[in-house]
Amino acid sequence: MTQETRYVVGHQQPDTDAICSSIAYAHLKQEQGENVLPARCGEINPETRFVLDRFEVDDPDLLEDVTGKQIILVDHNEYSQTAPGMRNAEVVEIIDHHRVGDVETGTPIHCRIEPIGSTSTLVTKLYREHGVDIPEHVAGLMLSGLLSDTVVLRSPTTTDEDRNIAQELAGITGVDVEKYGRELLQQKSKLGEKTPREMVTGDFKEFEMDGGTVGIGQVETVTPEQVLEQRHAVLDAMHEIREERDYIFLTLLVTDLLEEDTEAFFVGDRQNVFEQALDTTVEDEQASLPGVMSRKKQVVPPLEEAMK
Amino acid sequence: MTQETRYVVGHQQPDTDAICSSIAYAHLKQEQGENVLPARCGEINPETRFVLDRFEVDDPDLLEDVTGKQIILVDHNEYSQTAPGMRNAEVVEIIDHHRVGDVETGTPIHCRIEPIGSTSTLVTKLYREHGVDIPEHVAGLMLSGLLSDTVVLRSPTTTDEDRNIAQELAGITGVDVEKYGRELLQQKSKLGEKTPREMVTGDFKEFEMDGGTVGIGQVETVTPEQVLEQRHAVLDAMHEIREERDYIFLTLLVTDLLEEDTEAFFVGDRQNVFEQALDTTVEDEQASLPGVMSRKKQVVPPLEEAMK
Repeated sequence: MTQETRYVVGHQQPDTDAICSSIAYAHLKQEQGENVLPARCGEINPETRFVLDRFEVDDPDLLEDVTGKQIILVDHNEYSQTAPGMRNAEVVEIIDHHRVGDVETGTPIHCRIEPIGSTSTLVTKLYREHGVDIPEHVAGLMLSGLLSDTVVLRSPTTTDEDRNIAQELAGITGVDVEKYGRELLQQKSKLGEKTPREMVTGDFKEFEMDGGTVGIGQVETVTPEQVLEQRHAVLDAMHEIREERDYIFLTLLVTDLLEEDTEAFFVGDRQNVFEQALDTTVEDEQASLPGVMSRKKQVVPPLEEAMK
Repeated sequence: MTQETRYVVGHQQPDTDAICSSIAYAHLKQEQGENVLPARCGEINPETRFVLDRFEVDDPDLLEDVTGKQIILVDHNEYSQTAPGMRNAEVVEIIDHHRVGDVETGTPIHCRIEPIGSTSTLVTKLYREHGVDIPEHVAGLMLSGLLSDTVVLRSPTTTDEDRNIAQELAGITGVDVEKYGRELLQQKSKLGEKTPREMVTGDFKEFEMDGGTVGIGQVETVTPEQVLEQRHAVLDAMHEIREERDYIFLTLLVTDLLEEDTEAFFVGDRQNVFEQALDTTVEDEQASLPGVMSRKKQVVPPLEEAMK
């Protein structure tokens, strides 16, 4: 009997780390003789498009619904972020660098979560542990995932392991970390062509808190004024989205990659909890978060704690 | 500032793998310069007492409540099995070989779960990965946890990795796997002095299913008749316990380690679901489960599936 196909899938609204780590991990599994394919559950964003073109790699197939399939989760482990149908799929493995979320399994599986800068960093470690060679294009993908998620090693989530592995992967790919990183950042900053609604929902995650749902979007850019100047249109879009999806509140983090600061738009209830958790004041639906760059490390944990 | 003490703690009703892996993992962390202590949240059972005496190791301290403490979870990752106060503790790491359970964290942590025979096997791998030497007494503890959880490599949860690591640890400790394994099994079988209630609750776990709680006890023995002959007294104890704790149902698996079969006592509701899930028939509150040795691998998954 041939082994059933397993799919490596990242989160909804996939970013470069989600897409690149799914391709890289599927390749590792294939090298070990397993029937594994990369997949995605959302559109390729412009930054990831640049990366796939650059290393001449095909898009992973789009899975509309994963019901009944065997799934390897990368770069997330909570149901609010999974592909449609995940509660009726069989999760057979988890590779991630986020908080331990609410995904449960019926039987023991491989689950590897580490507090490091990217899932791509962890996949690189797994290549090393299993003694599998990293091809040049796979090194390029993993370097891209790593540099994208760590804002070219500037995010507070960055560890020494990320720095060492970035250099190692850059060596295999034959690129310079800083130079290639700047190219990537420029892709991330292509905001000009986006509608206000697309700015909010482009890199967007939902979190279950206090029996309801909270939405947190993030725009990472070197030109924050492109968002802030359109604040009325962006806030209108946020009110619309919050109403449609019944969020407790919705916030959009506009993160200045060069200044390493964030301006947050806020709409919804529990404003005082938001203010206390993040030690800020919301005025006219906007708040300053000096030094904040990471949604995962600097925004979600204090909000979760305060919402309990 | 000195680092806050972290405690390595296994599940309630700790078995030999829970106690031994907590001591072994704390030792590994100490060797890496961390302020980590082993702990337990329940009484030492007779088999574990034999192991600790044999390798001249002190009992880990008993933690009555872990509120506010930093905790490394070993050998479990669901709240129904954790030490009291765990929802108000900070889980900083998870090392386990069970299903992915409901423990969540606010921030990214190290979480390592593998589908292998024991947590002690996984801790041995971590010694290897970090290049830390295994002292003779620690090898003895990990071998004991491994052999206890895999019924001396006979349980269907046993993998080739467990077999190889058992031989490796036996070499360091200077014991013979089969001979030492038989000594351990005899300790596990010391049922004569137990009351019927102690037989039910000695190795006992709770599981959340379908909005309620199910209790599953297991007696692993080479003399099952010592339990089966007292069926009326054992069933009386089970009815009492079920009423006290409001379980949907309560089952006691009486597993014959030599014949590799199980007789199950069953009290409570949803008998037809139990019968379908385990492909058996309950008559006079008792059912045969031929070939069943592992609660985790052969009983819990089909019950969870059927109870959905």
